Amino acid sequence: MTTPSSIDLAEIRSARELLREVAVDTPLLHSRLLSETLGGPVYLKCENVQRTGSFKIRGAYVRIARLTAQERACGVVAASAGNHAQGVALAASLLGCKATVFMPEGAPLPKIAATRGYGADVIFHGPTVDGCLTAAQAYAEERGAVYIHPFDHPDVVAGQGTIGLELLEQCPDVRTVIAAVGGGGLAAGIGAALADRDPKVKVIGVQAKRIAAFPPSLAAGRPVRITGGPTMADGIAVGQPGRLTFELVSRYVDAVVTVSEESISQALLLCLERAKQVVEPAGAAGVAAILEHSYAVEPPVVAVLSGGNIDPLLLSKVLRHGLAVAGRYLVVRCRLTDRPGALVTLLSELAELGVNVLDVTHERVAARLHIEEAEVLLHLETRGPDHSQDVLDRLRGKGYTLTSG
Amino acid sequence: MTTPSSIDLAEIRSARELLREVAVDTPLLHSRLLSETLGGPVYLKCENVQRTGSFKIRGAYVRIARLTAQERACGVVAASAGNHAQGVALAASLLGCKATVFMPEGAPLPKIAATRGYGADVIFHGPTVDGCLTAAQAYAEERGAVYIHPFDHPDVVAGQGTIGLELLEQCPDVRTVIAAVGGGGLAAGIGAALADRDPKVKVIGVQAKRIAAFPPSLAAGRPVRITGGPTMADGIAVGQPGRLTFELVSRYVDAVVTVSEESISQALLLCLERAKQVVEPAGAAGVAAILEHSYAVEPPVVAVLSGGNIDPLLLSKVLRHGLAVAGRYLVVRCRLTDRPGALVTLLSELAELGVNVLDVTHERVAARLHIEEAEVLLHLETRGPDHSQDVLDRLRGKGYTLTSG
Repeated sequence: MTTPSSIDLAEIRSARELLREVAVDTPLLHSRLLSETLGGPVYLKCENVQRTGSFKIRGAYVRIARLTAQERACGVVAASAGNHAQGVALAASLLGCKATVFMPEGAPLPKIAATRGYGADVIFHGPTVDGCLTAAQAYAEERGAVYIHPFDHPDVVAGQGTIGLELLEQCPDVRTVIAAVGGGGLAAGIGAALADRDPKVKVIGVQAKRIAAFPPSLAAGRPVRITGGPTMADGIAVGQPGRLTFELVSRYVDAVVTVSEESISQALLLCLERAKQVVEPAGAAGVAAILEHSYAVEPPVVAVLSGGNIDPLLLSKVLRHGLAVAGRYLVVRCRLTDRPGALVTLLSELAELGVNVLDVTHERVAARLHIEEAEVLLHLETRGPDHSQDVLDRLRGKGYTLTSG
Repeated sequence: MTTPSSIDLAEIRSARELLREVAVDTPLLHSRLLSETLGGPVYLKCENVQRTGSFKIRGAYVRIARLTAQERACGVVAASAGNHAQGVALAASLLGCKATVFMPEGAPLPKIAATRGYGADVIFHGPTVDGCLTAAQAYAEERGAVYIHPFDHPDVVAGQGTIGLELLEQCPDVRTVIAAVGGGGLAAGIGAALADRDPKVKVIGVQAKRIAAFPPSLAAGRPVRITGGPTMADGIAVGQPGRLTFELVSRYVDAVVTVSEESISQALLLCLERAKQVVEPAGAAGVAAILEHSYAVEPPVVAVLSGGNIDPLLLSKVLRHGLAVAGRYLVVRCRLTDRPGALVTLLSELAELGVNVLDVTHERVAARLHIEEAEVLLHLETRGPDHSQDVLDRLRGKGYTLTSG
């Protein structure tokens, strides 16, 4: 593969023509809360409502559309546990081309179903995406199929770059664009699309702190492989930048910052509760960067919500975690004497304190209790941290023994 | 109050001018899944991303903006547990006018905080919205403030009608518009905005089956008061149509259908998982109608997602319920002999069955168990109903005693 160290703007414009009837021009939503935080306009570029639920369809489609008819006749193959799988599957199907996708055995069931739903053959291979990658490349060589890399190809980068053209039309006075970085295709593409821009317009990439290969790579001047911890932002957990994307990010992206798991979780909740947008953890990384690095972000800002494919169970956990962090959700165990009326008394006291009781589990017999004791596990909704503390203090003051749930 | 039985299109156009710098022209999203269901294009009009999280700001702002300066100087007063409270609070604040909102004591904490955040005085009054309504009207008379009705006023209806003008521009060939109906302001306004339309274009209103006052009212030819059961769609739980909105709905709306709680819950989940939009239960009513009454809905369809203000805890419950209904989430109790290794054996067997174990609660001592038994409560993710049934059969076949969780 040749690795040009620049992408021509004309390439991105031509990619946009290819995508005109395929990808959606996604909406740009104003975020009042983030605008107040930064003291200037902040907009969210909603690639979570893109077809297949993420921006990946753009690059995958451009890549496959630019294959020769003979290449397409041999089919395409990819490896992915997530959005790239769906992007390749749909793109191939729209272009009348057979797609085979290698997925790890533990891949989320809805993503497997979606990839198959777009008509791709799914082959399960081992527990990791890395293993699938090797298997997919071997399969491509054996069968003469074309391996579709998730990021490290000029056509893929040009496809993702169309987001940059769109957001410039939607927000011509933008000063900062923030995009999540895994392999770097999205940020490289947007950076290239904005290459002719006023140098005051900054492009900032965002990685999860737990697995951030770009900062050490940029420092070393070459792609460095790192091993990182697990992150909830699995969509950007990539251990090494691509050769091409590293060059392009070095050239076109002004900084790559990192964000904590807690910021990602808070950002995801903010997107849900305030912007009413379902995003996956990687999709919330741009907003997390605004929360964590606001000093470095000059408005008007466009943060790309890169995808919305989150497992419903994870979403449910993030919601409850977010409420607990905000002090609005309190889980506490409380011991009672095991006699009639003890629970009613406790519940009346909670009502007087203005607490909403969401769930009560009453355990009459448990090994850790004395014979005359019972214990209730309470899930409570409060007005916030102060109210939660007040509730705990008041119950203890009334003689209840409490332990955290 | 005078009750004209029509709303002039010019009134709605002028309302739109008033709202130009205030309300957002909300996006129209194409829904692939619903389009496939109906065999023609279905779009979602995203009032969930409107300012204050619902369409209510439109009507409230137009109503308050059309007061005289003297009236505005006396302040406005409203009663609401939800979206109308936030709409009136923001509208009043933008127009430099004092707002007092009566809310029931059990109102959701985020909605109280939002209403106060827009600068309104909140007065808690009794447990019900009905009680608040009487109190707000009495307060208005005492203080000379203007009572802002949530739906039964021409300016409010004209404000909501601006959605009709917008969606006609966004989807000129629409054949069916579907909107939730509580008091009827939204459907009346949209119907009036489409009054000059081709008669083939239908407007369909949707109520929650558990509290649906419009169908018996339309049958009786006058607003009828009903008592209904509780519905998760609290935003449209209104026991009696307004005088004005009843007239307008009779004239401009082609049918009012009802939907079950289960359809609302499924529709909400579809909006989340597929359209990536957070909606409140009432906001999902239009989509629920497509699921439940597809035979009556001719595409192209625009379904209005009227609001997105859902309590995060309710959202979390709907997610888990939806997974359970889809057969992808299985909660089951399983008895084990209480000896080392019994749990490991069970978990290995589940892994072999391709089940994802989300949560295990291991109870060694409980009153209902024999002394040599232990019980685990399992939360499992499966591939769907068939897989769930298969898992249960296989575990029973291996001699485990199972009870549903």
